[in-house]
Amino acid sequence: MKWPSHGSNPHYLYEAAGLKQPERILDFSANINPLGPPDSLKNHWSEFFQGISQYPDPHAASLKARIAEREGVEEEQILIGNGGAELISLLGRMLTGKQVVIVEPAFSEYEQACRVNNCQIEYFALDDSGELNFPRLLERLSHTDAVFLCNPNNPTGVYFSRNIVIELLQECKKQNCLLIVDEAFYDFVVEYETLVPLLKESEQLLILRSLTKMFAIPGLRLGFAMSSKERIESLAAYQSHWSVNGVALAAGTLCLEEDDYIKRTQGLIALERERLFSFYKKNRFAYSPSRVNFYLLQDMELGDQYPLFAYLLQKGIVPRHTFNFPGLEAKWLRFAVRGRVENDTLMGALAEWRSNHRSSL
Amino acid sequence: MKWPSHGSNPHYLYEAAGLKQPERILDFSANINPLGPPDSLKNHWSEFFQGISQYPDPHAASLKARIAEREGVEEEQILIGNGGAELISLLGRMLTGKQVVIVEPAFSEYEQACRVNNCQIEYFALDDSGELNFPRLLERLSHTDAVFLCNPNNPTGVYFSRNIVIELLQECKKQNCLLIVDEAFYDFVVEYETLVPLLKESEQLLILRSLTKMFAIPGLRLGFAMSSKERIESLAAYQSHWSVNGVALAAGTLCLEEDDYIKRTQGLIALERERLFSFYKKNRFAYSPSRVNFYLLQDMELGDQYPLFAYLLQKGIVPRHTFNFPGLEAKWLRFAVRGRVENDTLMGALAEWRSNHRSSL
Repeated sequence: MKWPSHGSNPHYLYEAAGLKQPERILDFSANINPLGPPDSLKNHWSEFFQGISQYPDPHAASLKARIAEREGVEEEQILIGNGGAELISLLGRMLTGKQVVIVEPAFSEYEQACRVNNCQIEYFALDDSGELNFPRLLERLSHTDAVFLCNPNNPTGVYFSRNIVIELLQECKKQNCLLIVDEAFYDFVVEYETLVPLLKESEQLLILRSLTKMFAIPGLRLGFAMSSKERIESLAAYQSHWSVNGVALAAGTLCLEEDDYIKRTQGLIALERERLFSFYKKNRFAYSPSRVNFYLLQDMELGDQYPLFAYLLQKGIVPRHTFNFPGLEAKWLRFAVRGRVENDTLMGALAEWRSNHRSSL
Repeated sequence: MKWPSHGSNPHYLYEAAGLKQPERILDFSANINPLGPPDSLKNHWSEFFQGISQYPDPHAASLKARIAEREGVEEEQILIGNGGAELISLLGRMLTGKQVVIVEPAFSEYEQACRVNNCQIEYFALDDSGELNFPRLLERLSHTDAVFLCNPNNPTGVYFSRNIVIELLQECKKQNCLLIVDEAFYDFVVEYETLVPLLKESEQLLILRSLTKMFAIPGLRLGFAMSSKERIESLAAYQSHWSVNGVALAAGTLCLEEDDYIKRTQGLIALERERLFSFYKKNRFAYSPSRVNFYLLQDMELGDQYPLFAYLLQKGIVPRHTFNFPGLEAKWLRFAVRGRVENDTLMGALAEWRSNHRSSL
């Protein structure tokens, strides 16, 4: 069986599982804001049509200026990308043949980008609790050119505190090792403490951001990287011209005005996540201590979660498989936190499952 | 002065020229269909909004199937790209460190993609008439890994006949050299004879196509490559996940139904091009014998065309500079064939220029 490498596009998942896709499905496999795109995008959508017959600004000057202002960095420290995935590809290209450490489980694109560029990859596994065994990681840095760390982590949703990451950065500075912190889901964490202010003094830091998760625009593709001017310049050299489409550029500028929408999202996600977690606690499902809009789930009565996975798929509920997350293979399933109605449906299905698969305790 | 590397986004051109941009401008610097996007795109535009909150299909299965059917190739022989420029970048990556020949003048992205990937680049200049000195090119192939040929050529608009290119392909097959034929503007040529049927028997052929010129959607980014299954697979390995956005995929599927629109465009372009060329002939302007929607222009009374360039910019008429086309530097200007009204405005401005810069003959 060849599983799709990512969530979303659920028909590929049904095909791989050899199951007929029900007429109505609820997709929990993509970590997208359940509120959908901000209203401002819908309201301006018809105006965006004008832009499609113009080449996009290859320098993305206006969006870059807005981000620079918002983040307190120089415009030359920013590279706008065709989604986070493109920026990860460019990083892999920049690191061709180098020694990299990937803190795992993690977004599988790090490995893919490094592998295609002949990097020597070492994996550093998170603890079973999803935490970072910090001293062990530091020992590994002396022969390492770059470390990929996803914070908050995907797929666990666990958030490593700023202090931990700063300590890691200090060691990276000593060892002249690039620390790549993928903050694709940072804005789902209430009071997230970003590392951006450290860019001023740390040549060894590179931060990735995505606009597609919070603003529910994965179809448009939009992300950005922040680092030293020199590093951004070398990264940009590998980027193809007009890589970021004009609709994404226009939408991104609107999204950056949506602070209230971010707060509303954080409130909804926190509330729903707590409802879900409290249900899981009562029903003997283990879950990762996520701070964001997705989490890992495990029926503690099962080892391999495949029976639960297949049961949910047949009911039209689509989790994210974990076959391609080293260390997680089939022992966990990942779910997005969706809206109240969808989460209720999920809990309903899991309650039914539980009543048919009673605890042996 | 640092000139923008491409046409479109004219404010960068005015900035580089140190000129104030007039309030109203007519942009002739981007080679886009003057009819604008097909009506079907406008009519479906509001539906596309739904798609932005879904991840695009990373395999672009539905668009790929449609192209395969239309072109008579296997789906595995196609790679959909984030515009032709991305596919050129991927080719550069695939050719890392190799020996390439670029037939020049040509689209500057070939050189850019090869240079960043440490290719050894040789340039092969077209004749002054814009034709291919064929025997001389063949001699160069024995130590060459790949040849970039743009047909119809950009920036001249000259079309190399199928026979000439087939002869080149035969030699490439003998020398095991990859022939990359960029057909980005092929559908502007009435009765263009494509090389696609030769893909069946020629591992050494790769064809690039773009949907952004004919369908006036450069803001969306969409192109594709066709070659052997093996070559497409190695090219795809370098592509970042979800590289082609969902709006482009949806638009592309509609565009491929627009055969009447292509015919209408060809008719309009042929008519307007003849009107322009006949005016140029009468007024001592030289032009390249273009078969497509753009052409090179030269005031035969001038060597360096900068005075004419600046004159037009000040009038709000934006040509494409040729400073970064080796062999053309400032000796020619490139213009898109636009609609009747815009072309009249251009001819009006050139007539005025001519009356103030009389022939010395």
